[in-house]
Amino acid sequence: MDLHTTIGLTAAICTTFSFLPQAIKVIKTKNTKGLSLEMYSIFTFGILLWIAYGILGSDVPIIIANVVTLIFAIVILFMKIKYK
Amino acid sequence: MDLHTTIGLTAAICTTFSFLPQAIKVIKTKNTKGLSLEMYSIFTFGILLWIAYGILGSDVPIIIANVVTLIFAIVILFMKIKYK
Repeated sequence: MDLHTTIGLTAAICTTFSFLPQAIKVIKTKNTKGLSLEMYSIFTFGILLWIAYGILGSDVPIIIANVVTLIFAIVILFMKIKYK
Repeated sequence: MDLHTTIGLTAAICTTFSFLPQAIKVIKTKNTKGLSLEMYSIFTFGILLWIAYGILGSDVPIIIANVVTLIFAIVILFMKIKYK
């Protein structure tokens, strides 16, 4: 694997899994006051579009990365709506 | 512009600018308790790698989208560190 691909994959892993500690934190503390409902609404919609983009282009890495991100984003959005 | 490109561009605009309301909220309220420091640290590092990926591949849309996201991410991370 060349440097370009390695950097891209590491970037995708970082930006995807960065939402995991936020999801864990919001589940543990139920403190959602500082979280922006607008952010997670627009972000979740954007991730759904990324998945559609991946499906249309048969781009498996884009589909997988965004499905994982979608799970974290939906958890955070759900908690924000439930405990706002 | 075909449907595939239109969906991809809309997706990029949504996931990039979704961080704007979060940045505005944290500047206004200074309430960062619910925000995960781990998330914004890993996320900011990931965005820097996306910019490196874009530069190595001479991919201007990836560079632009991630430079914009980086600005929002750094603002949120700075506020989280300052007001934790």
